[in-house]
Amino acid sequence: MIPNWLVQRANLTPNRIALSFDEKEWTFRQLLDEATNIAQKLRTNGLQDGQRIALLGSSTPDMVFMIHGCLLAGLEIVMLNARLTSSELKWQLADSEAVALLLDDQSSFQFTNLSKPILSFSDIHASGKSELSMVDRWLPSKTLTIMYTSGTTGFPKGVRQTAENHTSSALSSVLNLGLTEHDCWLCTMPLFHISGFSILARSVIYGMTVRLYEKFDEYAVADEIQRGQVTRMSVVAASLQRLLMVMEEQNLYASTAFLTMLAGGGPIPVDYLRRARERRLPVLQTYGMTETSSQTATLSAEDALRKIGSAGKPLFFNQIKIDVSANDAVGEVLVAGPHVTPGYIGHAAAVSPTTDGWFPTGDIGYVDEDGYLFIVDRRSDLIISGGENIYPAEIENILASHPLVVEAGVCGQEDEKWGSVPVAFIVSKGKIVESDLVAYCKQHLAGYKVPKAFHFVEQLPRNASNKLVRRKLKEWL
Amino acid sequence: MIPNWLVQRANLTPNRIALSFDEKEWTFRQLLDEATNIAQKLRTNGLQDGQRIALLGSSTPDMVFMIHGCLLAGLEIVMLNARLTSSELKWQLADSEAVALLLDDQSSFQFTNLSKPILSFSDIHASGKSELSMVDRWLPSKTLTIMYTSGTTGFPKGVRQTAENHTSSALSSVLNLGLTEHDCWLCTMPLFHISGFSILARSVIYGMTVRLYEKFDEYAVADEIQRGQVTRMSVVAASLQRLLMVMEEQNLYASTAFLTMLAGGGPIPVDYLRRARERRLPVLQTYGMTETSSQTATLSAEDALRKIGSAGKPLFFNQIKIDVSANDAVGEVLVAGPHVTPGYIGHAAAVSPTTDGWFPTGDIGYVDEDGYLFIVDRRSDLIISGGENIYPAEIENILASHPLVVEAGVCGQEDEKWGSVPVAFIVSKGKIVESDLVAYCKQHLAGYKVPKAFHFVEQLPRNASNKLVRRKLKEWL
Repeated sequence: MIPNWLVQRANLTPNRIALSFDEKEWTFRQLLDEATNIAQKLRTNGLQDGQRIALLGSSTPDMVFMIHGCLLAGLEIVMLNARLTSSELKWQLADSEAVALLLDDQSSFQFTNLSKPILSFSDIHASGKSELSMVDRWLPSKTLTIMYTSGTTGFPKGVRQTAENHTSSALSSVLNLGLTEHDCWLCTMPLFHISGFSILARSVIYGMTVRLYEKFDEYAVADEIQRGQVTRMSVVAASLQRLLMVMEEQNLYASTAFLTMLAGGGPIPVDYLRRARERRLPVLQTYGMTETSSQTATLSAEDALRKIGSAGKPLFFNQIKIDVSANDAVGEVLVAGPHVTPGYIGHAAAVSPTTDGWFPTGDIGYVDEDGYLFIVDRRSDLIISGGENIYPAEIENILASHPLVVEAGVCGQEDEKWGSVPVAFIVSKGKIVESDLVAYCKQHLAGYKVPKAFHFVEQLPRNASNKLVRRKLKEWL
Repeated sequence: MIPNWLVQRANLTPNRIALSFDEKEWTFRQLLDEATNIAQKLRTNGLQDGQRIALLGSSTPDMVFMIHGCLLAGLEIVMLNARLTSSELKWQLADSEAVALLLDDQSSFQFTNLSKPILSFSDIHASGKSELSMVDRWLPSKTLTIMYTSGTTGFPKGVRQTAENHTSSALSSVLNLGLTEHDCWLCTMPLFHISGFSILARSVIYGMTVRLYEKFDEYAVADEIQRGQVTRMSVVAASLQRLLMVMEEQNLYASTAFLTMLAGGGPIPVDYLRRARERRLPVLQTYGMTETSSQTATLSAEDALRKIGSAGKPLFFNQIKIDVSANDAVGEVLVAGPHVTPGYIGHAAAVSPTTDGWFPTGDIGYVDEDGYLFIVDRRSDLIISGGENIYPAEIENILASHPLVVEAGVCGQEDEKWGSVPVAFIVSKGKIVESDLVAYCKQHLAGYKVPKAFHFVEQLPRNASNKLVRRKLKEWL
């Protein structure tokens, strides 16, 4: 059994600071009070232990209270990505069978014809309280959160993340990064992503402060890191780059109190690592995904330049192996450990994510003679853009639905700011104006998924079995 | 599944220092090499995965290699207490059904008529190596160690300590104490005790150095702590007192690098806490036992004087409750968590240690309004002498077997050096010379269990059901 994180944490260190946002702070006891309040009001709205609720909001204290309130109420939370379009979200809401949508009042989303109730945060706050019998232990297999991740088929799958997944992930991480009583994790990652949610989980498991920002602001971050009030932070390549620009421009250095810059969501350019070292930022490259509730492997700062491009070694409770066929040492990266999802919900519920305990990531890589993991090719043509995963098939499906498009192929193109951006190749059956295609995509796809360029071609590169060969598209660029 | 600690640790941080003793050091890779060597030689001696072996030795690097070698070979280790007498050990050897005894060459023990093979450390070193297929994962329920603890009946029980018990104990502790890459735990506790063994477990789980001493030497310890090469240490009241004397005499202060003095094995006198604070020693009082694979609760240094006498709060994965009967808030302390033993071996194998997951400690205590545990009376007349547990019944059984003793009652008497020492009340059937009784006890009992005083009386205090009332004996003192 795993202790109900926040309940146990508030018992143990009630007066430590749990959350800091702007000028406001909340202790763990205050956080428990806020969350209990929410949980009691969720009950009044008919939400019962074991039910599934969808949550959509930005990274505010109220969102943190809602998350912990849902957990206290025993709900499984479908963490919706606020960057998606209404139609993408409606698809996930239907697939997840969530009983209701909990929606931030600040959200600009308009859902029409939604077949389930929408409860705004203010609806909840305005409700009366019902009695709540709180469980103080969770079964390890209890699903706490569900996050949708796009698959190779283009249909997002809802990934279950259990109490054991999140807890073992936090424990593995602490054995690698260490922990001090002054630790404070700067969170500018969206809370609906595993990168952001895992910071909240570590906070209550470790008794560590989260310094929360609604959005990434490189000036504010540079200031926090220089002052040394924060000791850890998670970034993706794009945000690291923006931070480095400011630190260089203002000639700032990280405080010696700042211990860890965890850099994930795709590879970090070598140039950034060198520049980060100049700024005394200890960058630890990490390899993780939604299905592994955050980090599987992490490269220590001391190895960052010696093992350039490596994603490091597995964390203590995790295992990595390469599925090598033929005589090649390079193959698909397989991952095992208590942090690996037990499975999906909705349309993919019957799909087993693992074989004999091993989760095939789809990424191609190798392990060097010292045991360091190197990723040489991302899973199934995955495009990682500013830390967001984009699967070409999802965009191709939308493009192909346009009346004038015969077929479409999408691949990633290198981009200085975002790492990679999607571009499309179109076979059309008549004249199409590019701006029409952009508008069409924006109706159906999150902004970061809309192709940044459209190339009109006679036909797409296909292999013998008529399968689209996306790496050929890359060569055409 | 839990990773085979040393194998995983040597994979992850092969070049970090694992062990330091005198002027010598071993990295984790070297420790794995030494232990693998031993494991392969244990195989040659016919020792197979899942078998049970007894181990008797003092705290030397060779003992550390033997422990890890046995674990790599998949053996359950019966950790024998080197302070016991041959006859006590023979009893445990028989009860445990260990297939062999692994005996330190430096040991002065002579075992005659032992019905199982004795393998000296040098026998093992001199053996050839056999092939060893090492498992890289353990089932959480796998028994790693067995430690005997005396019960209220006077017959010691062999306590199973599983991979999950030790691992969760180490994880709970790290969430409380924190962890830095410079951490080094000074170990002067016997490795056959959970207090010492748990340091070895933390070392391989955390990737932390153990600075090992064969014996507690207050001058060496004071020097280590002042120089700040070590950051953590475990003590009992008696060793803390000896250390304080030296630090006061030489006017030494703990280095600011020294983070934690974990003080267990019974209550710490308030005077010691005040003096420790003077010497800048951060003393954390802890409450643990063999059946809980080390700490269940720990009092933080910041609360040490505010909550004088408290054993603190439970660690993150643990729970404590008081079994209160009637209207009293004071009652037996019950403990639950993944660190609680699943059971015993040998004669007590059929005894379940827990009821609905709760282990009754036998200790009497209460939890105050802030959630802090206070122990008001030790379990079943337990005498804690210099960190060693002594059960009166065991001594009474021996005394009663003397031809001139009618009956005997034993209780603890306060002692400045040891906290408490056993004293005996004897009803005799003839004149007995005290020195004869001492000699008789020494034949059968470890030195620390031999009563420090004998009082000859007409009869023992008994209650209505004729049960010995040991607290009456205390009043007689």
